[in-house]
Amino acid sequence: MNEGSLTRLFSALADPTRRAILARLAEGEATVTELARPFGLRQPSISKHLRVLEEAGLIRQARDAQRRPRRLVVGGPLEEVDRWLHPFREQWERRFDALDSFLSRRSRTRPRKGETP
Amino acid sequence: MNEGSLTRLFSALADPTRRAILARLAEGEATVTELARPFGLRQPSISKHLRVLEEAGLIRQARDAQRRPRRLVVGGPLEEVDRWLHPFREQWERRFDALDSFLSRRSRTRPRKGETP
Repeated sequence: MNEGSLTRLFSALADPTRRAILARLAEGEATVTELARPFGLRQPSISKHLRVLEEAGLIRQARDAQRRPRRLVVGGPLEEVDRWLHPFREQWERRFDALDSFLSRRSRTRPRKGETP
Repeated sequence: MNEGSLTRLFSALADPTRRAILARLAEGEATVTELARPFGLRQPSISKHLRVLEEAGLIRQARDAQRRPRRLVVGGPLEEVDRWLHPFREQWERRFDALDSFLSRRSRTRPRKGETP
């Protein structure tokens, strides 16, 4: 994924309504009407959000010409976000490992009250 | 993390220069001058990017009054992105599991050439 696509993706995620739409679609496909209802949005504004999500590759239209439901693209761009997080995740995991080994060293050298060392 | 913070965070990540700054800081702290150099940016524009990253909680100033280096906040907001990805990650992992079991079923029922079933 190039930098432009990653920028488009993060921009698409930088909106609470769009994130809520994605969360709804993670549970299963939904029509525009079904998606608009919980947000109290009119069709043009929900359509605009859907277009942004579609252009970022996050959702697509399912093959049902009548209802035209939207569905989440499983994996795809969100796997890219996951991959992008990788070097940062390594850092916080290293921090947890360091804490773990500190605590286990501490419990070996300082037996709890009533315990024989 | 509330929706407002998550929106601020994704907006901060929706810029290739800011993502590159984070990647640089993942390797260790750096001063504004050191950060500006590889991007050929002037101080005001790098400072603006740093302010956006700071407001999103992604970086902070290290305790060195002279050099004022910036450092990555380990974990914090990026762990929130990781947590936000969780329900979506479950979906793509389910898909991989389904593919795995399909392939192992297939290799059990269709022995390779020359193999006795």
